[in-house]
Amino acid sequence: MKSTASLRRREVKQLLRQMGQRVYTDLDNAVFPELVFPSRSVRNIVYDEGLKQYILGSSSIRRSSQNIKHIRPFSQLVWLAYFVNKLVAEGKTSTLRDVFYSSQAYNVEFVDQDESDEIITDLEEVLSKAREDFSVYPEERSAIFGDLTIEYTVPGYEGKKLNLSSHPDGYLIGPSLSTAEFVDTSAEMVLAVEKGGIFTRFVEEKVHKKFKALVIDTAGQPPRSTRYMLKRLHQELGLPVYIVTDGDVYGEHIAMVIISGSANAAHLRELTVSSAKWVGVWASDVVKYKLPSNPMTEADIKRAQELKKDPRYTGGIWQRELDLFLKIRRKSELEAFSKYGLTHITDKYLPEKLREAKGM
Amino acid sequence: MKSTASLRRREVKQLLRQMGQRVYTDLDNAVFPELVFPSRSVRNIVYDEGLKQYILGSSSIRRSSQNIKHIRPFSQLVWLAYFVNKLVAEGKTSTLRDVFYSSQAYNVEFVDQDESDEIITDLEEVLSKAREDFSVYPEERSAIFGDLTIEYTVPGYEGKKLNLSSHPDGYLIGPSLSTAEFVDTSAEMVLAVEKGGIFTRFVEEKVHKKFKALVIDTAGQPPRSTRYMLKRLHQELGLPVYIVTDGDVYGEHIAMVIISGSANAAHLRELTVSSAKWVGVWASDVVKYKLPSNPMTEADIKRAQELKKDPRYTGGIWQRELDLFLKIRRKSELEAFSKYGLTHITDKYLPEKLREAKGM
Repeated sequence: MKSTASLRRREVKQLLRQMGQRVYTDLDNAVFPELVFPSRSVRNIVYDEGLKQYILGSSSIRRSSQNIKHIRPFSQLVWLAYFVNKLVAEGKTSTLRDVFYSSQAYNVEFVDQDESDEIITDLEEVLSKAREDFSVYPEERSAIFGDLTIEYTVPGYEGKKLNLSSHPDGYLIGPSLSTAEFVDTSAEMVLAVEKGGIFTRFVEEKVHKKFKALVIDTAGQPPRSTRYMLKRLHQELGLPVYIVTDGDVYGEHIAMVIISGSANAAHLRELTVSSAKWVGVWASDVVKYKLPSNPMTEADIKRAQELKKDPRYTGGIWQRELDLFLKIRRKSELEAFSKYGLTHITDKYLPEKLREAKGM
Repeated sequence: MKSTASLRRREVKQLLRQMGQRVYTDLDNAVFPELVFPSRSVRNIVYDEGLKQYILGSSSIRRSSQNIKHIRPFSQLVWLAYFVNKLVAEGKTSTLRDVFYSSQAYNVEFVDQDESDEIITDLEEVLSKAREDFSVYPEERSAIFGDLTIEYTVPGYEGKKLNLSSHPDGYLIGPSLSTAEFVDTSAEMVLAVEKGGIFTRFVEEKVHKKFKALVIDTAGQPPRSTRYMLKRLHQELGLPVYIVTDGDVYGEHIAMVIISGSANAAHLRELTVSSAKWVGVWASDVVKYKLPSNPMTEADIKRAQELKKDPRYTGGIWQRELDLFLKIRRKSELEAFSKYGLTHITDKYLPEKLREAKGM
């Protein structure tokens, strides 16, 4: 469990140095510098049956400074490497939006943030690292609570420790938490829940103690930094991950993205937790637990039909629950359990579903 | 600064008891129980020139159990009082949505959450208390960072202290923070910023130390719980509040709502901080600081024209900046300062604007 953060930072610095070195070597040899990385075009995003996730195929993108059409993205990419190298060196972080505006300080032109976001993704590929590793974060954040002692690695806080059960509203998963070392935990699992209200309910009902769990609020479809955190908790602490969502197709898809990744992050296989389990709310739970429910809208039904054709949803509970949603045409939120009292979800539903999930 | 939380809780319990007592007394006297509170109909929302905010006029709503049309909202309201009394007694919290579903446990019918939200607002009026006082919170949350030591009052954490500068990603403003006592602070002001990215930048650049400030991320238009926190920081600690938003009409309106409240919370005058100052980004700052900007959309322009007619926007910087937005037809985000380097906003802009605001 030791010093993975400083290791990661050192690795990123080294990779950035190598990238710069390649450019300089080309120049020294009087060759036009170029950078090569896998293509993310739709045709190169393929579903891997074995990994059960989308990955990139074998096509490459070549950005050559010899090609006049390439000069723009090539220099943007080189500038970005320079910029994040500075960020990492100074121990600062940046947001996707900040990167866009920062470029103007260097007279590097991006038409809009879409263009700079694209180049950030290019750099993820060149380095084979998630942007969280080079200190670029999104705006949205989610939260964590439970018995996990962390040690900060950000400037001004190095060596300071914090136990994540000390603030009952939960801790924001921001840059300093994402880069912290995991020092000690008594937790035996991670429970990822879709919304803040249920997160607070779980904390109040001491789910972290009763189930020896770290509880994470994904705040809807989890931001990348939260998936990054889930992955680290699973990998570095060996904790199984269980996902609790609303009983609808969007909830099912939140679980799917945590487990199998998304097509537009196909270049970042390491963000997935393939052994994570979706414990519910399933369509069959809506029926079994006689939950208050609402009719699915036209958009819900269309979404379910789309997902049915998605290769990630082949077989198992995934296809079965989609079919059942389409049959019952109803959906339920997590709060619907309150019909049976505020603690029904933690006293009855959760233990039953976790028992079931562990047997899966 | 002492024990305001337990005082607030005791007061709410007393008010709930009084409300119940009124019903019982009526029954004992063989009179149909009724509840009376100010009307929130549009015709009863009036702008108060002196207070510079929307308040409720003198019309009342009478909910009588004698009137067959009133029985439904009357019994919903009585049930809600029973439910939150239990919440407060048990030291639990609930969300707006949870209240809706919980009603089904008691066979109290609400068609949808809109209806239960309405009744929650009714109860705010009957008790003259914000729902945060009786433990009902929304989903959304924002964050706070800085040198403020709090003492929890929630079950399991009573008496525990925490300093809000100990986690550099900031602390979520959830139920336990909202109800905590303020024990000690070295801060001399509160800086409310509109978005997480800038919040993180401020923390990294040690704005809390340089400006002796508590920094709050309002996460867009601040949720009620955040306005509640701003009000407490101002009232209990005597701290002035400065608001930093994007340079657009929505940013201007975020500041306005913190300062003068909103029409749909006209019944809760105590949520406003009327002495708070909007330090920018003003339309004139977009020009003065030569910020990268985008054209205003049709919707932006329409919104500005609407606000121009709003009585809260009469005169002062409010009208002047709206006029200028409409003249330049451009808008800038806070991140636009990154054009001049990541620290320009904290090194140059913020000190200049705070100096200006203190002279206002």
